[in-house]
Amino acid sequence: MLTYSFENTGKIPLYEHLYRCIRDDILAGRLTPGEKLPSKRTLARNLGISTITVENAYGQLTAEGYCRSAPKKGFFVTETLEKMPVQAKPAEVPELPQTEAKAWKIDFTANTMRAEDFPFAIWTRLLRQVVSEASDELLMRSPSGGVLALRQAIADHLRSFRGLVVSPEQIVIGAGTEYLYSLLVKFFGRDKIFCVENPGYDRIRKVYKSNGAVCAAADMDTQGVRLDEVERCGTDILHISPSHHFPTGIIMPVSRRYELLAWANRKPGRCIIEDDYDSEFRMTGRPIPTLMSIDAAGRVIYMNTFSKSLTPTIRISYMVLPANMVKPFFEKVGFYNCTVSNFEQYTLARFIGDGYFEKHINRMRNIYRRRREELLSLLRSSENAKRLSIIERGSGLHFLLRFNTRQSDAEIVERLENMGIHMRPLAAYYEGEHPDAEHIFVLNYSNLDVEKLEQGLFRGIAGGKD
Amino acid sequence: MLTYSFENTGKIPLYEHLYRCIRDDILAGRLTPGEKLPSKRTLARNLGISTITVENAYGQLTAEGYCRSAPKKGFFVTETLEKMPVQAKPAEVPELPQTEAKAWKIDFTANTMRAEDFPFAIWTRLLRQVVSEASDELLMRSPSGGVLALRQAIADHLRSFRGLVVSPEQIVIGAGTEYLYSLLVKFFGRDKIFCVENPGYDRIRKVYKSNGAVCAAADMDTQGVRLDEVERCGTDILHISPSHHFPTGIIMPVSRRYELLAWANRKPGRCIIEDDYDSEFRMTGRPIPTLMSIDAAGRVIYMNTFSKSLTPTIRISYMVLPANMVKPFFEKVGFYNCTVSNFEQYTLARFIGDGYFEKHINRMRNIYRRRREELLSLLRSSENAKRLSIIERGSGLHFLLRFNTRQSDAEIVERLENMGIHMRPLAAYYEGEHPDAEHIFVLNYSNLDVEKLEQGLFRGIAGGKD
Repeated sequence: MLTYSFENTGKIPLYEHLYRCIRDDILAGRLTPGEKLPSKRTLARNLGISTITVENAYGQLTAEGYCRSAPKKGFFVTETLEKMPVQAKPAEVPELPQTEAKAWKIDFTANTMRAEDFPFAIWTRLLRQVVSEASDELLMRSPSGGVLALRQAIADHLRSFRGLVVSPEQIVIGAGTEYLYSLLVKFFGRDKIFCVENPGYDRIRKVYKSNGAVCAAADMDTQGVRLDEVERCGTDILHISPSHHFPTGIIMPVSRRYELLAWANRKPGRCIIEDDYDSEFRMTGRPIPTLMSIDAAGRVIYMNTFSKSLTPTIRISYMVLPANMVKPFFEKVGFYNCTVSNFEQYTLARFIGDGYFEKHINRMRNIYRRRREELLSLLRSSENAKRLSIIERGSGLHFLLRFNTRQSDAEIVERLENMGIHMRPLAAYYEGEHPDAEHIFVLNYSNLDVEKLEQGLFRGIAGGKD
Repeated sequence: MLTYSFENTGKIPLYEHLYRCIRDDILAGRLTPGEKLPSKRTLARNLGISTITVENAYGQLTAEGYCRSAPKKGFFVTETLEKMPVQAKPAEVPELPQTEAKAWKIDFTANTMRAEDFPFAIWTRLLRQVVSEASDELLMRSPSGGVLALRQAIADHLRSFRGLVVSPEQIVIGAGTEYLYSLLVKFFGRDKIFCVENPGYDRIRKVYKSNGAVCAAADMDTQGVRLDEVERCGTDILHISPSHHFPTGIIMPVSRRYELLAWANRKPGRCIIEDDYDSEFRMTGRPIPTLMSIDAAGRVIYMNTFSKSLTPTIRISYMVLPANMVKPFFEKVGFYNCTVSNFEQYTLARFIGDGYFEKHINRMRNIYRRRREELLSLLRSSENAKRLSIIERGSGLHFLLRFNTRQSDAEIVERLENMGIHMRPLAAYYEGEHPDAEHIFVLNYSNLDVEKLEQGLFRGIAGGKD
């Protein structure tokens, strides 16, 4: 007869304690396969506990397969149990490489936001409104492309601010542009050749490759991606940022745009992804019209994100499919659930619809313009400023800085790091060798607190000798 | 000399009106490539507007590439402009197939939540707290695996409620399990053979296939997936739900679990994905221990979601990697941004950490148990109830109903639909033919308002004749 102590069982229920005792006996081989367990009533009497307790323990053992019940015969240790190892202690997690950010005095590689720039109060107020007014909708599964309220708000916004007339059905909401790129690979297929700009965000290339697609890189000239390069790569799907290229800042002129549209039209299956990631932040004049707005043949997918315009930590991006692509797209990948929470979709819909997004953009554009000008003036008035040339095109949240020096990029990086300044060379955005890119650095300034920067920090940024 | 009317320009700024007029003349060929534009001063005097207005218009035209400026010579229409089409009107969006849900009297296929079941008040209060106390963190980019606070809260929860001792570094947060499956295909590679259970959620198969992986389906017996089937498929990565299989409800006994662990151990590169999607809702006894907790060799990835336990419309799921897999995983796919918003990650971390998640689960388990019992009792007391057999295993948010009839599944579906009842046959979850599945239907009840259901609705559900 099984005998177990019921002292010091702590907070564990009696039945669970009994279950554990019997389970451990089975695992240790003290109870053998096929052995009959005592009847519930006998065991209960023997241990001085209730029959219900034994019944619950046997029930759990049966549910987990340690024993089986035979009608009118009782409970038996499962025959098929091999001698099983008692639970091993968990393996130790190897030390992860610490990716902790170094504490730079100035970090020109960061493109996060400053907390005071985000309209927290409005955002949470709208969320509360959404919760109190639309709780049913919040718990209804979003369509694959996103909730209609948000797609409608984005369509209205695009009409007013980007001159783009599209219907909400053409819009697909996703948790970040990387997710949308993945979705496009699933839609177009892995037999297609994707092509990105060289230089460019290496992350875009990595995402396409990691999704199993071939991803080529086409060289650029001063007008943007070169048509002969696009042809050379055998491109099917061309991914470009015509409004403001990162990192060069190039705005693609209208002639090149029409050349690319003609290229897309020449062969069925070709498509251009227009990545409009920071078009909201053109500092002078009106925004550059989208490529999609001059595409009459339905070859352009427009893509944008709220990462730059709101915050990268709310993961909401979207793309606009050409009308002819809507049906095949949802037929092929419409079984995927939308990856953005309804709470944030509805909140953002109100944020845009009630005009807060426009106000926020205008406010941020002014803030960024001021930050940019203050930074440029600090650079221009710094020691040896004549050794620096600023390359900017009045758009976006970064500009380029050329060092007129014979020092290598590695030497410049090291010299700046010793001053507590973090800057990434343009060359790092190229695939392969590009000697033209040498001595040029990319400066993101969106999260800089320029007022607090001391003039002293910039002393010697240009270097004192070759 | 260019002459344009400045009447009726509406709310458009003067410079933009001028820009549009000149642009349209260029596009229509009225201004020819290479032609010199009038000097800013001359044009301004001629049109009776300020030089600044002309300057802004020329600036915009230059930025977009319609003209170029030659130092000290003036502005010229770009030479390379081919005769370009005026903007076509946008293509029409084809009518999308309306996926509007039919208004069923009872829908047993839905697994959404009822609004009153979600703890909105607590959720928004915690979100407000997070916003006021952690605004800096909210705007800092989340690590690829998720913010540490949430991973820690989940690790603590798993220790207390699933007996799973893991470190936060092993946990990866993602926007839904589908997203995590995609990430695993990227990690393991498309040369691996993934294998799911047959029957099962067809969505899982579709996700693996759409990610470019081979996905086989292994038949099950009463203990879960069959080992010979797993071998037959040449499986590398086996995706199973041992705690509560959908849709059969099978709980995999411990003997089969050890057999599968031994299978995984026999060859390098093999791995088991343990999909624990609704283990919180075991209605009797303690939860079934996880497969990962008895895996000493680091072959099991545990996966779970807050879709069932909180709401499917907050897109937060997670997986726990075995310790040995953490480093290779983040080296290979750690460049991806986390797909879940920081706002919701921090809110959920508090929701779990402050004990609300446990309370919510306990509350919901009681609600679901009551709903289940009421529904079962309605079914049992319905007309011709002897023609129905209920197959349930005390776990999860669905059970099976067998119709003792000679009617085909299609006939049963049609008969029920005419009564306003929507039910999906078990056979629909199988790949290939499975005659055993006939006459069995899957009943989800999580969103049913059972109290409001009339007994009358169930009248005749069993059918009156064969």
